[in-house]
Amino acid sequence: MRYKVTLSYDGTHYHGFQKQQNSHSIEAEINQALFKIHKKPIKIIASGRTDKGVHALGQVFDFKSHLKMTCEQFKKALNSYLPKDIYIKEVEVVSDHFNARHSAVKKTYKYIINQEFDVFKRSHELYYPYKIDIALLKEATKSFIGTHDFYGFAGYVKDKPTIKTIYDANVVVDQSRIIITFIGNGFLKYMVRKMVGTILDISSGKKPLSIIDTIFETKDRNLCGKTINPEGLYLVEVDYERN
Amino acid sequence: MRYKVTLSYDGTHYHGFQKQQNSHSIEAEINQALFKIHKKPIKIIASGRTDKGVHALGQVFDFKSHLKMTCEQFKKALNSYLPKDIYIKEVEVVSDHFNARHSAVKKTYKYIINQEFDVFKRSHELYYPYKIDIALLKEATKSFIGTHDFYGFAGYVKDKPTIKTIYDANVVVDQSRIIITFIGNGFLKYMVRKMVGTILDISSGKKPLSIIDTIFETKDRNLCGKTINPEGLYLVEVDYERN
Repeated sequence: MRYKVTLSYDGTHYHGFQKQQNSHSIEAEINQALFKIHKKPIKIIASGRTDKGVHALGQVFDFKSHLKMTCEQFKKALNSYLPKDIYIKEVEVVSDHFNARHSAVKKTYKYIINQEFDVFKRSHELYYPYKIDIALLKEATKSFIGTHDFYGFAGYVKDKPTIKTIYDANVVVDQSRIIITFIGNGFLKYMVRKMVGTILDISSGKKPLSIIDTIFETKDRNLCGKTINPEGLYLVEVDYERN
Repeated sequence: MRYKVTLSYDGTHYHGFQKQQNSHSIEAEINQALFKIHKKPIKIIASGRTDKGVHALGQVFDFKSHLKMTCEQFKKALNSYLPKDIYIKEVEVVSDHFNARHSAVKKTYKYIINQEFDVFKRSHELYYPYKIDIALLKEATKSFIGTHDFYGFAGYVKDKPTIKTIYDANVVVDQSRIIITFIGNGFLKYMVRKMVGTILDISSGKKPLSIIDTIFETKDRNLCGKTINPEGLYLVEVDYERN
């Protein structure tokens, strides 16, 4: 049987989702937990990677198991073996054609900025005390909506399509906090952080609003804002066609 | 000049507020920061201690300084020397008679319980998945209001008055979270955690509601609920007479 797993994690102490040699990854922790349950290595396929320090509220992976365990039993067993900063929220049975990466149709990311310093959120939001023009920030955020070539807003990408569609983008202001959300069909490495970096440059007056279109047209990464810190970024959810 | 300082801290990685030999305390960090600013030891007086793992949103201390620095300069200097999990919110000039401990007239504590596990709050709230009767929890909480002898709800106390007044106590339910707040003229060691432990025993059906009055009457600590985990507890604010 194939299982789809939805999980949250605090990325603070990890070098990202993906397993790499000599570094602490979320995937390695999951593999270890699955190994303890199955007494053999179990391969997982995730919806995608998240980078060092980036968090997830609803990352998804799938795995195949020969064990006769219920979804609730898998959830309990995994949570009992996983460290406290990784938490399995749901385990579901899916068709064997399901692939957490290829079946994904929509992803939601959010980025949290706080204009005041909160000692309890120091690894979970970006502290940004500089002046922001909220109207301009909203306008800049909205201007990412649509289908564009995001090459200029990505880290190094090789042999990957850089044309992506942002279905929706919005801003919520909650007292000193600003939450920027993007919903799209896919995101390139560093893409959200470079988009937010550019939005902050625009809304603090360092760059004109038109820079976004210029980057889309010229694909010039040097025009883009910096890759903003990972601690404010959350993979909120991954949507799939009904399986 | 004497200064009153309001600060927040994440108590997770500290052995409590008060300086002790060979342990990591918030007071020691503040002393070190003040030493760097003054080039000599500066004594501080805090409103009171908080225990290992307990947090503060508005702890208060005072200190005396001969330096010609503005309040804003003290705030900036202290924050630049303090670690990221301690944050100075405000520095004010007070009369030389001010004493953060003795001038305090009211303190507010809150305790956060979450019935769902939140990976981002694992050190900042109590995860309590057991069934709770909210109406009973509210009634139990309210029954602490008034002037009582809290000897039975305290850790070891020596030569200290145990009669305290709780001015107000209330419960806010926010989705899966339950926030219990107590406002009183003073709190004994472990008092809030023992009160909350007892409230949880009552609202989960382990103890009758009448146990609270019984503990007040008998002063029997063995009847009291356990000293619940520190991670859900916050010193919210300390009130003073206008100074």
